[in-house]
Amino acid sequence: MLEYKAPVRDIKFVMQELLDCESHYQHLGYQDASIDMVDAIIGEAAKLTEKVIAPLNQIGDQQGCSWNDGVVTTPDGFKAAYKQYVDGGWPTLSQSAEFGGQGLPHSLNITIAELFSAANHSFAMYPGLSHGALATIEAHASDVQKQQFMPKLVEGTWTGTMCLTEPHCGTDLGMLRTKAEIYDDGSYSISGTKIFISAGEHDLSDNIVHIVIARIPGAPQGNKGISLFIVPKFNVNNDGSISDRNGVSCGSIEHKMGINANATCVINFDGAKGYLIGEENRGLKCMFTFMNAARIGVANEGIAAAEASFQGALAYAKDRLQMRSISGIKNPDGAADPIIVHPDVRRMLLTQKSIAEGGRALVSYLAQLVDIGHAEQDEAIKADAETKLALLTPIAKAFLSELGFECTSHGVQIFGGHGFIKEWGMEQLMRDTKISCLYEGTTGIQALDLLARKIIGSKGEILKPFVNDMTMFCQENFDNPDMAEFIKPIMAYAKEWRDITLAIGAKAQKNLDEIGGASVDYLMYSGYVTLAFFWAKMAKVAQDKLAAGTNDSAFYQAKINTAQFFIQRMLPRAKGHAACIENGVDSMMALNSEDFVF
Amino acid sequence: MLEYKAPVRDIKFVMQELLDCESHYQHLGYQDASIDMVDAIIGEAAKLTEKVIAPLNQIGDQQGCSWNDGVVTTPDGFKAAYKQYVDGGWPTLSQSAEFGGQGLPHSLNITIAELFSAANHSFAMYPGLSHGALATIEAHASDVQKQQFMPKLVEGTWTGTMCLTEPHCGTDLGMLRTKAEIYDDGSYSISGTKIFISAGEHDLSDNIVHIVIARIPGAPQGNKGISLFIVPKFNVNNDGSISDRNGVSCGSIEHKMGINANATCVINFDGAKGYLIGEENRGLKCMFTFMNAARIGVANEGIAAAEASFQGALAYAKDRLQMRSISGIKNPDGAADPIIVHPDVRRMLLTQKSIAEGGRALVSYLAQLVDIGHAEQDEAIKADAETKLALLTPIAKAFLSELGFECTSHGVQIFGGHGFIKEWGMEQLMRDTKISCLYEGTTGIQALDLLARKIIGSKGEILKPFVNDMTMFCQENFDNPDMAEFIKPIMAYAKEWRDITLAIGAKAQKNLDEIGGASVDYLMYSGYVTLAFFWAKMAKVAQDKLAAGTNDSAFYQAKINTAQFFIQRMLPRAKGHAACIENGVDSMMALNSEDFVF
Repeated sequence: MLEYKAPVRDIKFVMQELLDCESHYQHLGYQDASIDMVDAIIGEAAKLTEKVIAPLNQIGDQQGCSWNDGVVTTPDGFKAAYKQYVDGGWPTLSQSAEFGGQGLPHSLNITIAELFSAANHSFAMYPGLSHGALATIEAHASDVQKQQFMPKLVEGTWTGTMCLTEPHCGTDLGMLRTKAEIYDDGSYSISGTKIFISAGEHDLSDNIVHIVIARIPGAPQGNKGISLFIVPKFNVNNDGSISDRNGVSCGSIEHKMGINANATCVINFDGAKGYLIGEENRGLKCMFTFMNAARIGVANEGIAAAEASFQGALAYAKDRLQMRSISGIKNPDGAADPIIVHPDVRRMLLTQKSIAEGGRALVSYLAQLVDIGHAEQDEAIKADAETKLALLTPIAKAFLSELGFECTSHGVQIFGGHGFIKEWGMEQLMRDTKISCLYEGTTGIQALDLLARKIIGSKGEILKPFVNDMTMFCQENFDNPDMAEFIKPIMAYAKEWRDITLAIGAKAQKNLDEIGGASVDYLMYSGYVTLAFFWAKMAKVAQDKLAAGTNDSAFYQAKINTAQFFIQRMLPRAKGHAACIENGVDSMMALNSEDFVF
Repeated sequence: MLEYKAPVRDIKFVMQELLDCESHYQHLGYQDASIDMVDAIIGEAAKLTEKVIAPLNQIGDQQGCSWNDGVVTTPDGFKAAYKQYVDGGWPTLSQSAEFGGQGLPHSLNITIAELFSAANHSFAMYPGLSHGALATIEAHASDVQKQQFMPKLVEGTWTGTMCLTEPHCGTDLGMLRTKAEIYDDGSYSISGTKIFISAGEHDLSDNIVHIVIARIPGAPQGNKGISLFIVPKFNVNNDGSISDRNGVSCGSIEHKMGINANATCVINFDGAKGYLIGEENRGLKCMFTFMNAARIGVANEGIAAAEASFQGALAYAKDRLQMRSISGIKNPDGAADPIIVHPDVRRMLLTQKSIAEGGRALVSYLAQLVDIGHAEQDEAIKADAETKLALLTPIAKAFLSELGFECTSHGVQIFGGHGFIKEWGMEQLMRDTKISCLYEGTTGIQALDLLARKIIGSKGEILKPFVNDMTMFCQENFDNPDMAEFIKPIMAYAKEWRDITLAIGAKAQKNLDEIGGASVDYLMYSGYVTLAFFWAKMAKVAQDKLAAGTNDSAFYQAKINTAQFFIQRMLPRAKGHAACIENGVDSMMALNSEDFVF
């Protein structure tokens, strides 16, 4: 069984040394978020995830959730662990003080979320979905609705869901059929079937607050006719106390590849009472509040998976004796060398390490942009942050979930045949992480969001603020010989990134399918270049620390070595993506759909 | 649930039109293997796999095998299906007439094996392992042993296993501890524990013949002290009839990520009676007979997985309506367009199709090389075939299993969230196929076999015959304008392949770890280039057919389109691998093993 250890040292490096969270928090007015406080919270989260949440991961996979006549039971230990999570005040961390929250920065919550995902992907999804529901209510609901629903959701004694997907529509929400008919009292009767509702029904909380998209009769077709509703499992009195059961039931739970301990539900709404949030027919826009946050959460799952698999694989690679190093015996007293001596095992371990740590830097940076979006007073700074967030969110979501999945596969490979056996926990990480490439918009959908909607949609403008940061960093360090090995490739790739963007734009003027044809390769290309930039920044911090003198030189030296690995052995993968993009879409579109098979 | 359809048209294209199996079989003296006979056999195999074997795939996954006090029970329907397989004479297909076989070419058996793997990976492994045991006995056992064990194994009423791995050694078989002590009668007492024994115990056959590697007391340490034994589950009288139970027992079965319907056993030998095959201490060499064939079998699994996932994903992509084509509505009467209109969905489908069909061409070519190894009279031709087989076997095994796995992942992505649900069968293909990247030597081990043992070990000589074939093909078609789009890139990559090989060789003279550091990227590079060559050859056949006039022009046009896709959108991935190789191993070896994590 895997033993999870929260990467506390690395989190501190990223938050404090790379991203100077102290100044960031002070500037935004988060007075409580002192370094001491942040350290204490991360330390407590480490303890909870290592000692309580991680030990439930394997049993959760084995037992899964069970459904019996509409009642869903979570695996042994989940209920007690969730209670501990609530008693510890974890749901309240970054919530508004007005509703019982601690008012700490959102970024802190995003950082903590990685630990929970790495310890137990299924468990982490229960509170994860509540955050989505809360964010939507806080941003779009009325004051009365907030008073009714938020305190218990903030407390964590109620949980939330997001009910979007229906059997015939996932990506294409404009096709939804769930109906919302208005009652005389201004509430609505909601009827329809939603599928793939994570945490849709379970035994962890006293009530479940569903955020549901539905169509009001007479609404425009498509995306412009979607409205958003709060539909609680139990109706709620005006004072926030629980009343009778609403017309919401769980029809079944799905049997899945992974995340077995998270209940993925079919939820039936049979004339359930619902409450409109925001304006009629403007629901899809409101959903985006939630979706961007959820996508960063999924990026976090990619890092978490890479980190957890890395930890398991590293321990095994140091322990397992097999074959001798090709460059000479390294463990003369043993029957063989530990497999960590073999270059290809190191390649896989460093892939995991460089994705976990590089991804952590990217997501922590995005988390600071989220803080800025919430708390910055200067509108220009805020707009700049939002532009960067819009660009980087689909990249982080898709690239890190894909690479996180790849990393879990390396973890299995490092274990050899043992990796395929459930007992070791390595294959569970693969199965659990695959969902991250699917939910909240598949990799293909993220790639279209990035390239079609954002890049082409802005005529490339959206790329500029972030690429300017890259260019400025390169210029600042241009004369530093120690940084040349990082700066030179990044300058070249940043230029190529812009060139590729222009080339796709030009081709798309003749054939719009060029966008879809390039999209995933373009996103992956963007991911490698983005992470390379963060690795260069981390290398610079590490070099400065070493130059200034430190007791922690092995840590900083490892940071520089890992940066070198990423630049030398990961970034060049972008060449393959660029070469594929260059060859265009024609070979994909030539076949008639009936000629794919004979 | 998936419905499997054997790709009969494509198999005929590869065997007859690309590889001219008629001349090949006639030349080697396989008089019975006429086109009519081959067609009839493939047609029957298609029926059996589609109607009997494939329908057991999902239930096999759900039920798995069960263990009870040493007795292993296969899932419902497996026993009856295996009986049908035996009654149909399938195990006898390519076995020697002397022992009851049909004496048909080995290549035919390899072709058929793809169908069984695609229909039901777990089922296909039961007879698959018997082939390995049979090949080893036929090549290395005494005449008496052959008479004793082969007829029933050929018939299929007995099955076989290969018992290599022990808990502390997989790749590094030289570390094995299983002991073999000689009795007065010349037989041996075998004691030890083997793990990961596929089909090690089950209820399909009357006896199970284990081929076991063990160490005779006093034998040299390491690989030079390994001997090979036949150890039957039930002892066998001299006339081949079954006698008493031998000291062989199944201690448990593994709980795995996939191939749940194949029993992966811990097999305990407690003073079991065993019979030496071949000479003492020469066992590892004998094992290679089996291992090369097994590796081609695993390459086949990669193709099978790509094909099965492609079939499922294609049906879904034509059926599922979601979003409109970015280049204009394609299905105006529907609520949305079928997702096959979206370029990125086509990219995934064509990746699957080009790997399944390109891989089929490569494996069918290897299968003909196997025939030549068995039946060619001319020693020079035979030696040439064996050189190519040695080069291409690790490439086919690792590249096609990795790409086959990637293809199953694309299948899940095309289904979106539904791909993650067990019901559809797409995620099972992923779980089942992951084992192909692990067993019979992981991808990393294949890469070392290719680059260290074979390429560097021969100073690059082993590359020449195959690259010469590529060069000759390019020269023959150099003036053909229709072939230019294939020939030009292949010539460039073939040259780069040689250049990369030389560059690694030069670096390795200074640091042997450069070999391991380059190995997997080198293997993947080689895989893309090799498959590009087969795609070019297939495009040429298709062009010739179209030029000559045919009723089947859509088929040939699709072949050319798929070749274009492979050259334009798959082959350029090799650029990324080449760029990684160029940057060398230094960044991988710099970290001390204790500095990977802090």
